[in-house]
Amino acid sequence: MTQTEPLTPPVVAFQGEPGAYSEAAVLEHFGSQTITLPCESFDAVFRQVEGCSANYGLIAIENSLAGSIHQNYDLLLANRLWITGEHFLRVKHCLIAQPGAALSDIRKVISHPQALAQCSGYLKKHNLTPEVFYDTAGAVKHLKESGAAGVAAIASSRAAGVYDMQILEEGIEDNPENYTRFLVVAREPVDPGENAKTTIVFSLENKPGALFKALSVFALRDIDLTKIESRPLVGTPWNYLFYIDFSGSTASPTIARALSHLEEYATFLRVLGSYPRHITS
Amino acid sequence: MTQTEPLTPPVVAFQGEPGAYSEAAVLEHFGSQTITLPCESFDAVFRQVEGCSANYGLIAIENSLAGSIHQNYDLLLANRLWITGEHFLRVKHCLIAQPGAALSDIRKVISHPQALAQCSGYLKKHNLTPEVFYDTAGAVKHLKESGAAGVAAIASSRAAGVYDMQILEEGIEDNPENYTRFLVVAREPVDPGENAKTTIVFSLENKPGALFKALSVFALRDIDLTKIESRPLVGTPWNYLFYIDFSGSTASPTIARALSHLEEYATFLRVLGSYPRHITS
Repeated sequence: MTQTEPLTPPVVAFQGEPGAYSEAAVLEHFGSQTITLPCESFDAVFRQVEGCSANYGLIAIENSLAGSIHQNYDLLLANRLWITGEHFLRVKHCLIAQPGAALSDIRKVISHPQALAQCSGYLKKHNLTPEVFYDTAGAVKHLKESGAAGVAAIASSRAAGVYDMQILEEGIEDNPENYTRFLVVAREPVDPGENAKTTIVFSLENKPGALFKALSVFALRDIDLTKIESRPLVGTPWNYLFYIDFSGSTASPTIARALSHLEEYATFLRVLGSYPRHITS
Repeated sequence: MTQTEPLTPPVVAFQGEPGAYSEAAVLEHFGSQTITLPCESFDAVFRQVEGCSANYGLIAIENSLAGSIHQNYDLLLANRLWITGEHFLRVKHCLIAQPGAALSDIRKVISHPQALAQCSGYLKKHNLTPEVFYDTAGAVKHLKESGAAGVAAIASSRAAGVYDMQILEEGIEDNPENYTRFLVVAREPVDPGENAKTTIVFSLENKPGALFKALSVFALRDIDLTKIESRPLVGTPWNYLFYIDFSGSTASPTIARALSHLEEYATFLRVLGSYPRHITS
C-alpha cells in the first residue's frame, strides 16, 4: 500500500454482518489490525465516514459476474467523500454448517440470492435446495443461532471463523473467475503515487456524437479507460451521467489537460478521486 | 404502430401479476384487445415466446429514475429473440385500498421497494409506514385477499381495476419524470419502417482507445447513439459487453457500413433488432 497509514489502527466501515466478504476485503486491504465497523446499508457506510465515526469506508462497486453495484455509484455522487483506494477480492464461496455436520446430512442451503445463483451447479449436483436469505454472513449467524441441523449456509471462510462454524467445502462457486472490486472512501483525497487510477463523473448535452467527443479527450492523449458506466440523470429522462475510470492521476499534466478539454463538452464534471491502483499478483 | 398485426388478438407475455405496470404497457402498445400472459420471471417471458405460447414478450429495460434492468440485457444476449418494438410508459403510482376506505384510516402501505422509495415524500407527509412487498400489483391482490383495513398498496390504476379496489389518490410519486422503457421481443425480426432504432451488443479487445474507435463508426456517419450500457463479460473479469441503441435500421446502407466498420474492432457483434421508434406525444 502506498497510502499513508494513520498511527493507530484505522476504523473502516463496511456494509454487512461481521464475516461478510466486504469485511474480508477490509482486512486484506488495511491489514489484520484494522477495526472493522459493520453497517446495515451502503448509505450508513457513507454516514459513518462523513460523521467521523470511521476513518474509511469500503464499498463494493463491481463484481466480475454480476456487474456494477449501481447504488454505490449514486451514493458517490450524492455524498462528498473521496475515493482513496481500490481493492480486488477473489470471491470464494464456502459451504458452512454446524460443527460435526457432514455434507450427507445437508438438505437445504441458505444464502444471499447472488451467492446461491453463483453456486447453482454445485447445489444441483448435490441435490441441495436453495433458500434465499438477506445476507451471506447473516445466513451463517442465523444458522449458528438457530442450531438447525440439515441446513448449511454459503458465505466466506471468514464467516465460518467469526461464528465458530464448520466449513464443509471451500470454493463451491461454478465460475472461479469471481472477483469483486471495492472502493475505499475517505473525507480527504489521497496522494495516489505513480501507479494511479482516477474516477470521474460527468454529463453531456443530449446530441449526436457527444459521448464520442467526450471519450476523444482521453483517446487523443493515449489515456487508458478501464471502465465506463452510465446512470440515469434523475429529473431529465433519457439523459445520463457517465462514470469513467482511467489510468493516471489528476496530478499529471496530461490528465489535467484531458479534464480541462472534457469541460468544454461536459454540462457537469466532478473528480471523485485519484488513488493507487491495486496490483493483484 | 407500424408493426404488422396478427389477425387474431396477439398473446403477449409480461413479468408480474395481473395489473402490473408491464401489463398496462402491453395494453397501451398492442391495444386493449390483446391477450396478456402473466409470467413469474423475465426468464419465463422469454421461454413463453420461444416456446410459441406467446406471440410477443414485453420486458422492462430501463426506468428514468432507477436505471437499467441489467438482467434483461443479459437475457437478450442469452436468448435468440429479436427486439421488434419499444414502449415508453409514464409510471403513475396510485394509493389503493379497500372500497369505502378513507385516507385517514390508512396507517401502513405495502408495495415493491422501488415504488415505496419513489413515493417516500408522500408517505412521510401523510405519516404512513412503508412495508416491502415483492410486487406492486401483487400487493393489491394480497390486500384484496386479506381484506385488511388500515392498509393500502401502491400500484398502477389498472391494478385497482383488476382487483376491484379503490384508488385513494393518483400520481403520488415524488418525481413526475418517472418513465419506464419496455422492449417488445419476438421470434422473428420486424420491418421497422422509416423512423427506426437499432440495438446491438458487442465486445472489444481490452486496449487503450478501443471504445473510442468503436464509437467512431457511429460518430463519423452522424449516427445518433441514444443509449450505451456495459455489462461484465462473464469468464474474463473486467472485460465488458457494450449494448448500444442508435437511430436507424440495419436496412439503411449507412448503418450497414457502420456495423461492417465496427466488425473490424469488435471481438463479438450481434444485432438484437431494428424496430420502430415509439413516438410519445
